[in-house]
Amino acid sequence: MPRLHNFYAGPAALPLSALEAARDELLDFAGSGVSVLETSHRSKEYDAVHNETIVLIKELLGLSDNFDVLFLQGGASLQFTMVPMNLLGPGKSADYILTGHWSQNAYKEAQIIGNARIAATTEKNSVFSSIPQQSDLKLDHKAVYCHITSNNTIFGTQWHKFPDTATVPLVADMSSDILSRRFNPEPFGIIYAGAQKNMGPAGVTVVIIRKDMLSKSRRDLPTMLSYHTHADKNSLFNTPPTFAIYMINKVLHWLKDFGGVDAIEKENRAKGELIYGAIDESDGFYHCPVARDSRSLMNVVFKLSCEELEKKFASEGLAAGFLGLKGHRSVGGIRVSIYNANTLDSVKDIVAFMEGFAARNG
Amino acid sequence: MPRLHNFYAGPAALPLSALEAARDELLDFAGSGVSVLETSHRSKEYDAVHNETIVLIKELLGLSDNFDVLFLQGGASLQFTMVPMNLLGPGKSADYILTGHWSQNAYKEAQIIGNARIAATTEKNSVFSSIPQQSDLKLDHKAVYCHITSNNTIFGTQWHKFPDTATVPLVADMSSDILSRRFNPEPFGIIYAGAQKNMGPAGVTVVIIRKDMLSKSRRDLPTMLSYHTHADKNSLFNTPPTFAIYMINKVLHWLKDFGGVDAIEKENRAKGELIYGAIDESDGFYHCPVARDSRSLMNVVFKLSCEELEKKFASEGLAAGFLGLKGHRSVGGIRVSIYNANTLDSVKDIVAFMEGFAARNG
Repeated sequence: MPRLHNFYAGPAALPLSALEAARDELLDFAGSGVSVLETSHRSKEYDAVHNETIVLIKELLGLSDNFDVLFLQGGASLQFTMVPMNLLGPGKSADYILTGHWSQNAYKEAQIIGNARIAATTEKNSVFSSIPQQSDLKLDHKAVYCHITSNNTIFGTQWHKFPDTATVPLVADMSSDILSRRFNPEPFGIIYAGAQKNMGPAGVTVVIIRKDMLSKSRRDLPTMLSYHTHADKNSLFNTPPTFAIYMINKVLHWLKDFGGVDAIEKENRAKGELIYGAIDESDGFYHCPVARDSRSLMNVVFKLSCEELEKKFASEGLAAGFLGLKGHRSVGGIRVSIYNANTLDSVKDIVAFMEGFAARNG
Repeated sequence: MPRLHNFYAGPAALPLSALEAARDELLDFAGSGVSVLETSHRSKEYDAVHNETIVLIKELLGLSDNFDVLFLQGGASLQFTMVPMNLLGPGKSADYILTGHWSQNAYKEAQIIGNARIAATTEKNSVFSSIPQQSDLKLDHKAVYCHITSNNTIFGTQWHKFPDTATVPLVADMSSDILSRRFNPEPFGIIYAGAQKNMGPAGVTVVIIRKDMLSKSRRDLPTMLSYHTHADKNSLFNTPPTFAIYMINKVLHWLKDFGGVDAIEKENRAKGELIYGAIDESDGFYHCPVARDSRSLMNVVFKLSCEELEKKFASEGLAAGFLGLKGHRSVGGIRVSIYNANTLDSVKDIVAFMEGFAARNG
């Protein structure tokens, strides 16, 4: 089977060169005589990959030494719990800005742990079709942090300018757009991201924590749930998900060779312009339900005139080699996920398919 | 580099056929046109692997439908916390039998959560060189569970006959010997095991939970930390570590082709007889500090007359193609880890090396 166009929302497309590199050395990792899948996490070969991956993340994101990079497990969903467990002690309060399903889940978990309040929500009739304006935010200036979801995979929205929370540290779930664009990391106390969209396979969560937030984190927690445990041991307190980290390393090398975050941001903007252009120029055949200033460059969601036509689009798309076009089951419609590893050529091909489909069915 | 003898304690040797199968389809998984590393966890191709892996685990271990099989993250170390969080509520008590470093850690985490007591320990001067006898156990017949570590990687001991705890369910960390031998699963309320020794790569923890234990588990926990969350959603509440589960599938197919647990147990016994035989017949050149009835068939630990000679053994062994011979840093000495995927031929080779080394240095 030739490689198809992979528009899955996550786990998602990985760079071909990263996959080929992993394949080529799957039986002999770094000349060690064993596979990376079966090498000790204490071996010098793995150790080099582990530490280089941290350096690459810091370099590509432009993180100062004011940040620690951790490799954890359990996905963003476990971070929904770990963030408040570590930071939201008795007598404290945290702000949550709700822009979709995942930020709702983060808020729900925080409520189990402590005092979480909603600083803004763009929900209307169970749908989130925009990112709030700065003037919409009711911020608590004493909050221990303000939580956002930088990109919303289900509703296809994205923060294009992060909120100004003054001295309150931002905590961001960046699972679906980390490393897709340049931003100033300094206002962020914690950034966490499941790897399986822009960084690697499922099974590892990158947590970037500013040192002042780490020092405020609790030590009186179950060992595995305290950030200190992992920061103190450079994410080697127990066996880390070594292969997933190794794959991040391969993906970051690809990104660096591509020209880094600035180059991929330019590419992502070009991809977005193409596909949103096709929607906007379809005379209403395709309709994007998202406010223009909130459109995601990672997950492009759109609707056709009826569910039947959307099904036809997804099934003809699949037959033409485009995987993962169905919108999330909770919202329906069509979703085309175009993360870093989705190429401009793939986007050109889906745009051509969209134009052809509209011509045949318009 | 040719493949070397992999005696790492974990992540550890995987069957060559499993590695080759993964390599051969790394760019095109099950004819899907994408890699298993980048396929959706909701795709039909992944779904088939996920469910087949559960069936294989149940089949190979002889588990009745009275058990659920879950794929979690965070290693055995997170289970040290999740077991008591789910089962050790206020007013309850759990028994812990201490046989080494990992059972100590499990006990420490349980103490953070609730009332845990020591039912037995074989520690003498910080060393655990045996498994307790049934008559040594001071069991609480009202305990909600009794926790054991079935095999101790650091001290090289293993339970050869599991303790009789009457109606109290056993909870076992079987990370380092699951699927290595036949046992009756019915007395076990929970069995958990990090995959990275006998089942696959690091990054997934298999949790086997008996339905009555699941029904006693708490629901008022952070979502990701409740067993119900994962049991209710067949381990697809959030994105599971898909590739690690896929590799378990490959390893279990190899094990099934090998003849299953009974056949591998016979092989493991033959491997153990060879290497312990070499130790016992070395006229004291090699010395195993473990009580005879407690010797592990997975991690063979032994000492030489002095640390200097042990270093020489490990470094000459490495030069001869034997990886991972150094004992755990906390206890020193030599450790040869011979899990399911370590072949009888590999063990014959290390035994020949041991004999030669003794002849040269005796």
